[in-house]
Amino acid sequence: MNERIKEGFVLWFTGYPCSGKTTIADSLAVMLRNRGKSIERLDGDIVRKSLSKDLGFSREDRVENIRRIAFISKLLSRNGIGVITTFVSPYRFIRDMVRKDTTNFIEVFVDCPLEECRKRDVKGMYLLAEKGEIKNFTGISDPYEKPERPEVILHTDKETLQESCEKTIAYLKGNGNL
Amino acid sequence: MNERIKEGFVLWFTGYPCSGKTTIADSLAVMLRNRGKSIERLDGDIVRKSLSKDLGFSREDRVENIRRIAFISKLLSRNGIGVITTFVSPYRFIRDMVRKDTTNFIEVFVDCPLEECRKRDVKGMYLLAEKGEIKNFTGISDPYEKPERPEVILHTDKETLQESCEKTIAYLKGNGNL
Repeated sequence: MNERIKEGFVLWFTGYPCSGKTTIADSLAVMLRNRGKSIERLDGDIVRKSLSKDLGFSREDRVENIRRIAFISKLLSRNGIGVITTFVSPYRFIRDMVRKDTTNFIEVFVDCPLEECRKRDVKGMYLLAEKGEIKNFTGISDPYEKPERPEVILHTDKETLQESCEKTIAYLKGNGNL
Repeated sequence: MNERIKEGFVLWFTGYPCSGKTTIADSLAVMLRNRGKSIERLDGDIVRKSLSKDLGFSREDRVENIRRIAFISKLLSRNGIGVITTFVSPYRFIRDMVRKDTTNFIEVFVDCPLEECRKRDVKGMYLLAEKGEIKNFTGISDPYEKPERPEVILHTDKETLQESCEKTIAYLKGNGNL
């Protein structure tokens, strides 16, 4: 048996708001737990209410938020836990920093056209961002730097949820993480 | 075999600065890892340089610092990791909050007389605190609320390092954590 199966990993979902990160990650967490893997989910709602409640969405605050998440992801992944994170995490350098700090970092780029993300946005955040009522909104008033060499690319405008999950699991298997 | 052996725990060391928390915790971490247990050490030096570099030592900042550590300890302990923390953590209510939030919380009170802690202080922090050059220093200018019902009490002015470690391990065994 591949020794890496016992190792932790970090499945790092990145992409525009409403691109589908959370939906896929939540389904994947269930699938992987069903296989007996210890999985921890980290997402914006959890982290911003606990660890980062002092932080906003300026560039500086976004970076600090990801730094804290990196710290936790490092501790979990080096202890054999599979971490699944869903943060817009728009800046390349900080994602690369997490890659260096964690065990078996796997960047999952949820590549969905902005127009499609906008259509899915039931909370109307894109509209508020366009009106200037939400500031520093990725894709509208804040940049998104696409991953250059992500381990997994998911096209959520073309694939079903099931297909996106299977693609990610296939990567984990091929990489010796499952 | 007791099922709790597979569970995580949080060995929460609390006590005055220079009471001996770190020395004991570091030795214990080695002993427990030698038994094959996954152990993560969290201490002030690590946390204040990464997760909490924005925080000082006011009551409010100390509380926020422990809140963040509680969040990490929760994630680690519920995934089967043994967490060993060494923070002065002078306020009872916040230690009780960590207790509620984590899996198998074990409060280890390092009970050492203030005068003895002062003697051991090679960095001269107590002296600086007495001169007012370090503010909010526990035991001098900030209160320490002793645990009311700690699971383990260590008297580092009377016990050897070996004895303190053995006492803690005996507790873990008796409690089904080892």
